[in-house]
Amino acid sequence: MVVKLYFVTGNEHKLLEAREVLKPYGFLVERLRARKLEIQSDSLVEIVKVAVQSLGDVGVPVFVEDAGLFIGALNGFPGPYSAYVYRTIGVSGILKLMEGVENRSAYFESAVALRMPNGEVEVFVERVKGFISTEARGTGGFGFDPIFIPEGHTRTFAEMSLHEKNTLSHRAKALRSMAEWLKRKLRAIS
Amino acid sequence: MVVKLYFVTGNEHKLLEAREVLKPYGFLVERLRARKLEIQSDSLVEIVKVAVQSLGDVGVPVFVEDAGLFIGALNGFPGPYSAYVYRTIGVSGILKLMEGVENRSAYFESAVALRMPNGEVEVFVERVKGFISTEARGTGGFGFDPIFIPEGHTRTFAEMSLHEKNTLSHRAKALRSMAEWLKRKLRAIS
Repeated sequence: MVVKLYFVTGNEHKLLEAREVLKPYGFLVERLRARKLEIQSDSLVEIVKVAVQSLGDVGVPVFVEDAGLFIGALNGFPGPYSAYVYRTIGVSGILKLMEGVENRSAYFESAVALRMPNGEVEVFVERVKGFISTEARGTGGFGFDPIFIPEGHTRTFAEMSLHEKNTLSHRAKALRSMAEWLKRKLRAIS
Repeated sequence: MVVKLYFVTGNEHKLLEAREVLKPYGFLVERLRARKLEIQSDSLVEIVKVAVQSLGDVGVPVFVEDAGLFIGALNGFPGPYSAYVYRTIGVSGILKLMEGVENRSAYFESAVALRMPNGEVEVFVERVKGFISTEARGTGGFGFDPIFIPEGHTRTFAEMSLHEKNTLSHRAKALRSMAEWLKRKLRAIS
């Protein structure tokens, strides 16, 4: 049985990642073009909860995702505003802020909010710990991937294939949490 | 006749500025503690419009204000997320990003949204042009005031008295626009 899940996102990369991660579970990801409400908050969980609820009743299982890069030495910056920071000061801005900074610990966090046709909302949050590199490396991925090295690795996310990034990443982990939850749910009702 | 206006803000400095600016017009500013919806947007106008509308009908004239520092060489960063950026990387972060940058042009923008008891919403936007200093100077004001020198001046906002800043600032100008609009409105209905 193939179950369709609808992903509200404007980000092509996230769509591809989600399709690859969710396929083995038998979930087919379709993009839903809808306007979601995006609030300002330090909490990604709050942002995605409000976003998925703002979609109202769409009659199908629908999910949204938001992610951020949280750098310890910068008090969590750029955090929930990573997309805006990427568009303005970019990778080079982050590298400049980190010049001469010894503590390079950071983590990526992803929050996925799923809204079931009955209105039930479930949120899945996952992190991947790592370090900010001293230079941008690689051409894969998107956003701050070229400067993030996951713990236990030597290459940045941008130096990995989509498949390899998906074995490690915050977003892949959050999406898998959603998939496991959905599978339990579907078993319970079938 | 004294008219009371209600300002929804968590920022003590903004409250003091608004009181000083609006007093000569015969407007008394009271703080209203209410939860407003703050969306993510590159447009301060959109942010304050949604915020004031989210308050619903409070039966009195109520306003909200949002401001940002837009730095040309940083593609407008930190812009609408200035408060978050101030809390994380702070003044020193901005100075580090601007190290060796020749073009130091920037502007502060303020957007004020007023909601009248009849539901009418009016937005006032003003800017003050200036430059990013090479070091933080002064102890007045708040936020990025210590690194902003308004055009035609040599001192930063933080080196000025509240009264002097209020003769120049983006926020004072937007508040005065609101006051003028309100005075015309009140004359028309009295």
